[in-house]
Amino acid sequence: MVAMTHPEADEIRLERVLYALSDGVRLSIVRQLAREGATSCAALNGSRPKSSMSHHFRVLRECGVVRTRSEGVTHMNELRRADLDQRFPGLLASILTVKD
Amino acid sequence: MVAMTHPEADEIRLERVLYALSDGVRLSIVRQLAREGATSCAALNGSRPKSSMSHHFRVLRECGVVRTRSEGVTHMNELRRADLDQRFPGLLASILTVKD
Repeated sequence: MVAMTHPEADEIRLERVLYALSDGVRLSIVRQLAREGATSCAALNGSRPKSSMSHHFRVLRECGVVRTRSEGVTHMNELRRADLDQRFPGLLASILTVKD
Repeated sequence: MVAMTHPEADEIRLERVLYALSDGVRLSIVRQLAREGATSCAALNGSRPKSSMSHHFRVLRECGVVRTRSEGVTHMNELRRADLDQRFPGLLASILTVKD
């Protein structure tokens, strides 16, 4: 497995978070994680192509929006809500409030 | 002069606004407009190259973040604060609160 990169909370940068959220697919992943909590990649992929979803997960991870951990052969993803709320108060809430 | 495109308020899309704000230069323009109100391109450019600044202004306009109007030979830019606050309550405030 390729090593997964997660920035520390204090390394998360506003521009990078906004970039991660500037894509409809990534926004829909974030909305689903906000609703459902920790979720496997498989469940989040739905019928979308695995290769492009892997790219989206990597962007979300490297920008500090999502944390992925391995559980056996499954990757579980969680929204880094506490880290984001601490770094950028109100940002995530304002984005999640917007209707699709 | 090239015609300038501004979306109507109800056409402004969240992903596009987040994209427009996902760049350090564009964020700094938005912060300056938030502080100073309507400002000319020349004053916003500072010592940065005009061609890349033109690109950034176009992104900000086309994504619905900034409105540019011509006053003689000057272009004046304004943050579309009321439109953004109405469409995405709390978003701009949370972003402007973050320190550079």
